Amino acid sequence: MNIEVCYTPQAYHLFHKDDAIVVVIDVLRATSAIVTAFFNGVSKMVPVSTVEEAREYQLNGFMAAAERNGEVIEGFELSNSPFGYMNNKVKGKTIAISTTNGTQAIEVSKKASKILIGSFLNLDVLCEYLIAQNKDVILLCAGWKNKFNLEDTLFAGAVVEKLSNEVGTDITCDSAIASKHLYSIAKQDLYSFLANSSHRNRLAKLDLERDVKYCLTPNQCPVLPMMEGKYLIKL
Amino acid sequence: MNIEVCYTPQAYHLFHKDDAIVVVIDVLRATSAIVTAFFNGVSKMVPVSTVEEAREYQLNGFMAAAERNGEVIEGFELSNSPFGYMNNKVKGKTIAISTTNGTQAIEVSKKASKILIGSFLNLDVLCEYLIAQNKDVILLCAGWKNKFNLEDTLFAGAVVEKLSNEVGTDITCDSAIASKHLYSIAKQDLYSFLANSSHRNRLAKLDLERDVKYCLTPNQCPVLPMMEGKYLIKL
Repeated sequence: MNIEVCYTPQAYHLFHKDDAIVVVIDVLRATSAIVTAFFNGVSKMVPVSTVEEAREYQLNGFMAAAERNGEVIEGFELSNSPFGYMNNKVKGKTIAISTTNGTQAIEVSKKASKILIGSFLNLDVLCEYLIAQNKDVILLCAGWKNKFNLEDTLFAGAVVEKLSNEVGTDITCDSAIASKHLYSIAKQDLYSFLANSSHRNRLAKLDLERDVKYCLTPNQCPVLPMMEGKYLIKL
Repeated sequence: MNIEVCYTPQAYHLFHKDDAIVVVIDVLRATSAIVTAFFNGVSKMVPVSTVEEAREYQLNGFMAAAERNGEVIEGFELSNSPFGYMNNKVKGKTIAISTTNGTQAIEVSKKASKILIGSFLNLDVLCEYLIAQNKDVILLCAGWKNKFNLEDTLFAGAVVEKLSNEVGTDITCDSAIASKHLYSIAKQDLYSFLANSSHRNRLAKLDLERDVKYCLTPNQCPVLPMMEGKYLIKL
């Protein structure tokens, strides 16, 4: 069981292996929102690259979520804020979603044999599943516009730590080693550690502190979303 | 003075700013070899992307260095091992050099207003120069075949730490913050910290422990190589 961490969607092609499991990570906030949506009874989601595609789904009667640069796009009822999915309106629905980084990460990895959605909210169920599968794992950070970001890296580090502790896997990928080290110095207080992260600052400016605190709290939504064809479903 | 760290040549276009100073970093071993060469009296170097170009210089009577995957290419007198440059034969010479990652990093950044060569061997003179210039800095890690690597990141972290301590610059780039954290936990014993790095393991297999120890020892070669046209010269 080889574990690698890919820091940006742009670099995914360097990591791709046909039978590896890909975990897409966009902690602030796309994958946290997706996990929250399924925990609150959403039936399916359709990740789409462009806002136009999300709008098309909307015109065809679907609920739709669209976000760019941390803000909801006008005309959409949902964005990537997890709190938007915590109500009865979403129950049983199929929702199209397009976000700045997260849906692009899903798009680049679409040739993977299995794509899972990871966030602190479903850390333990994700790791238990990966251990049971016993296949190679690529942790794909969505980053910020193809640049490295801290929050996705810390989550990747949490997964690397858990898998290497429980399975005893030897970690040889430099970015996996770095992620694990960064998580080890941050885990006592993820929120404070991220105080200087550019993306968290960006969210602070948008008054999203409540979202950030929620997204950094592990295991609040023990569900595991997975791609099946063009849909995300709950495993 | 804004300081950013770019982890791979592939991502450089996301960081490029016309008047920023780029520092190319390939600690194991291209930039360590270049710094060592100038410290030992080399007059000029010509970084070239391909082995064929290096061979052409050789046919025209130049000394030439070529390395791929950690090994010297047959027919070349030099590679990226710093010890090859510690003798009188190189004094006053112009040497063409092509390496797996380092020369590619120089190539992608060629539109930068200034390109400097960084390694632990010239850490202090590099930082003093950057502080005096007081311009934006992009620390460009050569990485390993466009993947993140630990040793270049640690050196970037050393530079970020020095500049932020001495100039009090506010660091907002996530990869700069991560590099500084990683350096802070590694700096007491860089060699042991890197024990698990894939690249260092690769070098260990090639029996290059002596090179690695040398390349991780700061300030042995207080010279600052810089690109001028197609040449590297000593500033």
